[in-house]
Amino acid sequence: MKLTCSKIDLIRALRIVGKGVAPKPETPILSGIYIQALDNHIELQATNYEIGFRYELAAEVEEIGQIAVSGRYFQEVINKLPGDIVTIYYAQSERIVHIESDHTQFTLLSMDPTEFPKLQPISGTLSFTIASNTLADLIKKTVFTCSTDDGRPVFTGCLLRVDGATISMVATNTHCLALKTSKTEQENGQIQIIIPSKILHEIKGIQTGSVPVPVKVTCSYNQISFETENLYVTSRLIEGQFPDYNRVIPPSFQTKVLVKTSALAAAVDRVSLISQSDDYNIIKMNFEDGHIQLTSNSPEIGEAREELQAQIDGPGIRIAFNAQYLKDVLKVIDSENCLLGLNQPLSPAGIREDGSDDFIYVVTPVRTR
Amino acid sequence: MKLTCSKIDLIRALRIVGKGVAPKPETPILSGIYIQALDNHIELQATNYEIGFRYELAAEVEEIGQIAVSGRYFQEVINKLPGDIVTIYYAQSERIVHIESDHTQFTLLSMDPTEFPKLQPISGTLSFTIASNTLADLIKKTVFTCSTDDGRPVFTGCLLRVDGATISMVATNTHCLALKTSKTEQENGQIQIIIPSKILHEIKGIQTGSVPVPVKVTCSYNQISFETENLYVTSRLIEGQFPDYNRVIPPSFQTKVLVKTSALAAAVDRVSLISQSDDYNIIKMNFEDGHIQLTSNSPEIGEAREELQAQIDGPGIRIAFNAQYLKDVLKVIDSENCLLGLNQPLSPAGIREDGSDDFIYVVTPVRTR
Repeated sequence: MKLTCSKIDLIRALRIVGKGVAPKPETPILSGIYIQALDNHIELQATNYEIGFRYELAAEVEEIGQIAVSGRYFQEVINKLPGDIVTIYYAQSERIVHIESDHTQFTLLSMDPTEFPKLQPISGTLSFTIASNTLADLIKKTVFTCSTDDGRPVFTGCLLRVDGATISMVATNTHCLALKTSKTEQENGQIQIIIPSKILHEIKGIQTGSVPVPVKVTCSYNQISFETENLYVTSRLIEGQFPDYNRVIPPSFQTKVLVKTSALAAAVDRVSLISQSDDYNIIKMNFEDGHIQLTSNSPEIGEAREELQAQIDGPGIRIAFNAQYLKDVLKVIDSENCLLGLNQPLSPAGIREDGSDDFIYVVTPVRTR
Repeated sequence: MKLTCSKIDLIRALRIVGKGVAPKPETPILSGIYIQALDNHIELQATNYEIGFRYELAAEVEEIGQIAVSGRYFQEVINKLPGDIVTIYYAQSERIVHIESDHTQFTLLSMDPTEFPKLQPISGTLSFTIASNTLADLIKKTVFTCSTDDGRPVFTGCLLRVDGATISMVATNTHCLALKTSKTEQENGQIQIIIPSKILHEIKGIQTGSVPVPVKVTCSYNQISFETENLYVTSRLIEGQFPDYNRVIPPSFQTKVLVKTSALAAAVDRVSLISQSDDYNIIKMNFEDGHIQLTSNSPEIGEAREELQAQIDGPGIRIAFNAQYLKDVLKVIDSENCLLGLNQPLSPAGIREDGSDDFIYVVTPVRTR
């Protein structure tokens, strides 16, 4: 195998594929990155059996072939090369990978590439195409609500529900729930699967180009794949029954509040300073007469108090929340103003973006003395 | 006590004084910041008995007085306030500190300010004035060589040696040694003291203004203070006998090498990638015929090789170093080219800045097979 490619392109490819390299691999080959040099491009692969990445990259290939090298060292070496162009070649006889750029030469021991578990296309029961920015938004507005408690696996992932032209993503940690919905132009059939939050974080990060690209999503009963022009990602799914989230969403709210998102976020952030060392991180909110008054107190530290203007329709209400859940959702709301819906001090509250019904966040209040 | 001051100024003051707050205080009062409001300014103080900070700040003082509040919470609250102006007042009857800015109000429980161990001016045996940038350079070029092994305290600090108009700072971890010298305009007497590296890191960070300011340094047998117009810092000294560093510095070098600092730093950085997981982090250097060849190898990972142009006077030599010691010193060298002085493969090597005799770094080579 012998090839030449752009260092910047290779660094970008490794930044993505490198996420598939297992830090503590089950078998040594999983610590490796697999590279296959084909006619005028190369393919990089890494997998830890949970998640797999394949990335295609333009290259001048002088001699086709395949290698597997330590993912960690290959990535570190490429990142530090001095020049703009990288030459990689493999001498079968010595089983060593040579990497050259300007006056720098590295050799890396190689692994047997035939041992590498190459990604197989999954045979899906359902497949649809979605714009990368729409997919990223579905993920961004829900994945932060996933639980990190591995004891209850279904809550560590997002439910992807496809129902005709409607794509929904839902996450809950039992204290709060986020639901984001989007429409595709085409009908897609029906499926409900639970995707691990880890793969969603990776997918969200990858789709950061300024121009949206189409992503083909293919789902089977135990696997999902995301495919763009040069990237193919697969992940195992989480088995189990996701709770009936529609039961959790209040059908209506007595008190409706319109408030500037950034002002509310800053106020919650400040007022929760006093309560943040407490497990429940409680802030109290009083909605009345065109104002939201936020307070928190700790017998060991002190008190905080802040007042915000807001448009309040319906009866005044005093209610308390875990500030962290409000901070989390206020970070992902894109609209200038947000809508709070409230019923009773111990009934779930809702938060929406102003001007859109595609997103709702439901949060359970905290009981206070 | 009641006062109003600029939030930005107070944040800057707390960033400095906050370094004196003990994270795990011996007594509760040491977790506090002491604030004294005087005629038209306030003084902030924090100390953990090892290090103490006092900072003076302009303020509109309506009522003089003193308070002590939790350093951590006071700093977090001030950092997050919304407005540009902060009002702080203390009601003696309730023993609570009120902090206000725009529509935000905080109260913090307070401690008894009379319990706070206020900084006392040290009665020095020697005192001199040095420009802040000169002091920062003395520190920067030596403190990175300090040992972190608390078992041998004298190596965890820098020796400050005052000898007439010559101020020297020296640090060693027994494998390498850094010596930086500077001249003052005036004669200062003679003293040798060992300053803990921790306080030197703080002092170096504080002197970052673009315009150098005079710093008055006062030394006693067990304490040192640094004083600028609005800052006063004291530290305990390290007791013990610093080794005779002049014996360590080779009087002459057989082989003298002139090389571009940034090119050598980049090459050492790259080549050491292969050896960095090894304790000794060995890179081999071959100086010959106008070239430096750097190599490293690891039986488990691979090899690295790089060649650099250099001006070499004297016999060729092969020598090996712990790459970390070279990386450390190459970060603090300010000259475009640096000078390497070499004698034998197992004799200490020297590194200087091109065009200046004020700095030398001596590093012991590593024995290789």
